[in-house]
Amino acid sequence: MAQKPGIPKGTRDFGPAEMARRNYIFDTIRSVYALYGFRQIETPAMENLSTLMGKYGEEGDKLLFKILNSGDFLAPLCPPAEGDTSSHQPFGLPPTGGSQGAARLAAKICEKGLRYDLTVPFARYVVQHREELTLPFRRYQIQPVWRADRPQKGRYREFYQCDADIVGSDSLLNEVELMQIIDEVFRRFGIRVCIKINNRKILTGIAEMIGQADKIVDITVAIDKLDKIGLDAVNAELAEDGLPAEAIERLQPIIKLSGSNEEKLATMKEVLKDSETGLKGIEEVEFVLNLYQGSSVLELDLTLARGLNYYTGCIFEVKALDVEIGSITGGGRYDNLTGIFGMPGLSGVGISFGADRIYDVLNQLELYPQEITTATQLLFVNFGEAEATYALPAVAACRKAGIRTEIYPDATKMKKQMAYANARQIPFVALAGETEMGAGVFTLKNMVTGEQQTVTVEQLIAAVATK
Amino acid sequence: MAQKPGIPKGTRDFGPAEMARRNYIFDTIRSVYALYGFRQIETPAMENLSTLMGKYGEEGDKLLFKILNSGDFLAPLCPPAEGDTSSHQPFGLPPTGGSQGAARLAAKICEKGLRYDLTVPFARYVVQHREELTLPFRRYQIQPVWRADRPQKGRYREFYQCDADIVGSDSLLNEVELMQIIDEVFRRFGIRVCIKINNRKILTGIAEMIGQADKIVDITVAIDKLDKIGLDAVNAELAEDGLPAEAIERLQPIIKLSGSNEEKLATMKEVLKDSETGLKGIEEVEFVLNLYQGSSVLELDLTLARGLNYYTGCIFEVKALDVEIGSITGGGRYDNLTGIFGMPGLSGVGISFGADRIYDVLNQLELYPQEITTATQLLFVNFGEAEATYALPAVAACRKAGIRTEIYPDATKMKKQMAYANARQIPFVALAGETEMGAGVFTLKNMVTGEQQTVTVEQLIAAVATK
Repeated sequence: MAQKPGIPKGTRDFGPAEMARRNYIFDTIRSVYALYGFRQIETPAMENLSTLMGKYGEEGDKLLFKILNSGDFLAPLCPPAEGDTSSHQPFGLPPTGGSQGAARLAAKICEKGLRYDLTVPFARYVVQHREELTLPFRRYQIQPVWRADRPQKGRYREFYQCDADIVGSDSLLNEVELMQIIDEVFRRFGIRVCIKINNRKILTGIAEMIGQADKIVDITVAIDKLDKIGLDAVNAELAEDGLPAEAIERLQPIIKLSGSNEEKLATMKEVLKDSETGLKGIEEVEFVLNLYQGSSVLELDLTLARGLNYYTGCIFEVKALDVEIGSITGGGRYDNLTGIFGMPGLSGVGISFGADRIYDVLNQLELYPQEITTATQLLFVNFGEAEATYALPAVAACRKAGIRTEIYPDATKMKKQMAYANARQIPFVALAGETEMGAGVFTLKNMVTGEQQTVTVEQLIAAVATK
Repeated sequence: MAQKPGIPKGTRDFGPAEMARRNYIFDTIRSVYALYGFRQIETPAMENLSTLMGKYGEEGDKLLFKILNSGDFLAPLCPPAEGDTSSHQPFGLPPTGGSQGAARLAAKICEKGLRYDLTVPFARYVVQHREELTLPFRRYQIQPVWRADRPQKGRYREFYQCDADIVGSDSLLNEVELMQIIDEVFRRFGIRVCIKINNRKILTGIAEMIGQADKIVDITVAIDKLDKIGLDAVNAELAEDGLPAEAIERLQPIIKLSGSNEEKLATMKEVLKDSETGLKGIEEVEFVLNLYQGSSVLELDLTLARGLNYYTGCIFEVKALDVEIGSITGGGRYDNLTGIFGMPGLSGVGISFGADRIYDVLNQLELYPQEITTATQLLFVNFGEAEATYALPAVAACRKAGIRTEIYPDATKMKKQMAYANARQIPFVALAGETEMGAGVFTLKNMVTGEQQTVTVEQLIAAVATK
């Protein structure tokens, strides 16, 4: 009967030590969001599949976790056919099943799916609650999302997203505010970062300028790989994508663009002087660069592409300077996310902190503050019912004073109770046997120094609380 | 193309105002748990169905949300049979499908399900991580659970549970601690409650005593309804269940038992004097009653039955005194929860706060403290790019001082911006036009009193921060 316990692949348990660290990350992000006037919402883990399907591309649809309709989910497919066994395909499937058949059957037996990100549910939320909302609406949301991705190092099937978005305002001040938030969050974490910024309109302008407007996706996908595969491989890929040699040639100064933001902007203004869209993109980036006042570097990076089909204006991504790891935060402006739900013309811009990668960076750099633990500060040893009864009012007094306190529940051997205190890293242990009970005191042991002293309850509280 | 947005029935969106209240509830429970030495864990939303099935009874199995295997989930069912269409039942289903067929198919195409409660995942966690844990292990867990129940008023398909459990200790001190936690949490909420306590062993003793040990479930189910349907109906139900008149007669003094805890215990000691199990139950309740020191009433209630198959010792339930609502917290001791996962002999005891009902009670009694909001305190009006640029350093200074601050992103009409401040209930608005910019100051408007004053940034911070 005994089962070997386990959890689905790509998912994780978080124990007490990990939870303390994760809560530190979430609480830090949460308080900066609140400081900037963002307010929290939560949406259900399950959304209707009609809300989710078609929003993440064909690949995304496949990665949605679908929930089987409850009850007799086959009833709508198999109308009762007493004695009739002639139908070969009760589910309308091709006889061999296969992945096409699977997708068709799934559509009939599943109406709900698990949230794939926080952006689409947010768009759905805005449209559904439009009457209650005051625009511009600044919301943040910190919840898990689920993707049926192949699990691998650093990629999970359940992970948290920490999003902030502003909808209902075209102003670039929102982009500036989001850059400030990124700067402030990483300042609090103590992680040195570079914020990279680009603009979709600049990328469109470049594609126009080299006469390849229809190849914009291929171009940006290739350029996006520059860091990883190098210039020669990027050019080879561009050629493979069908770009004429002349167009690739004209791209070179842009790909290799270097210098300060001002120098890059000056060059690009010249390059894009005939593209209205391109110049608009440059103007937008300039606005953000000019008003941004954080201490993290904000760098124009024309090779930053980021989910091109989705974003329409500024895009940004954050790299940690002292750890080799992918982007730890990203975002951008999207012009018509709510359109699909019947509310066109609403512009939005948002960012998303990657909690799991930030967790890895903080671990690698050992940047967690000492005081983030909420572990027990004081343990009362249990010598038996009479002693425990004597200790309980002191336990209550310590808790009333805000000291995280335990009393060992069982009157087991002293050695076992001290081992428990050590394993739990509890810094203070209080004992009361016959002698202490007679005198109305406790013996307080400092588990780090080994020091012992006889104390009243008031002295005990003072000694533990000041540590 | 436009979709009418909605969410699955029985689920909810939580907007900013609701989130502030819900966070207040969770944070209060969380900090009391931590004060008592409990540490937080989180488990995945998805568990293997083998972990969940058979743990909640036949009815519970039906209420599990099952997740369709990703990819070609039909492949294992439909081995490729090129050109062979002779099989009438590709899924091994009876030709008419039906709910039996549905259950069989579900078992083949779903390996995972959504968490139904926090107790079974906790038991799985303890067994899986037994090597890392120091026993006794006190953990708390605050996460949503999902049940395919028929939605109705106050019953949802997604809701949060807030559990604390101690495993690896038989001591009744744990029961006492949990009673203290309940008392402290509701004291902090300002909700007056009565904590009802009973013991499964007493119920067993009663069934033995009237010669109906095998009818224990029927007896407790009937007695549990006393409050709702009255004594006559309870007796009628007992007769229907097949209890002889004599046994029902002998039950009367127990059902009608009244008086103080001491009086009830004295009566029951006499009634159960020949039942070893019954007397053990009384002894356990006495221990808890004697050591409990909270201000909420702790009352022995022999009609409290509560999930009998599951609990083995003390059971408790909390009723709000000032609101007509079901139990708002409950719990009890279970002796062998981890046995099913291959780790027998580990006793546990736990409680679970019902966050949704507590939310309703706090709403009805209007007990939310004023200061729980994290809404914006100060809005800077935006008159245009130059004015916004002038304001931004002041915005940053206010945030640095911890004031939750916004600057209106668009330079729209003053009237619209003030309407935004009013709708958001932002108490202070700061303005700077040409005059203020010339003098290096701001006009600060108190939105409640209508008062206006000219202030420096320092004065502005002081004025808003002290409110």
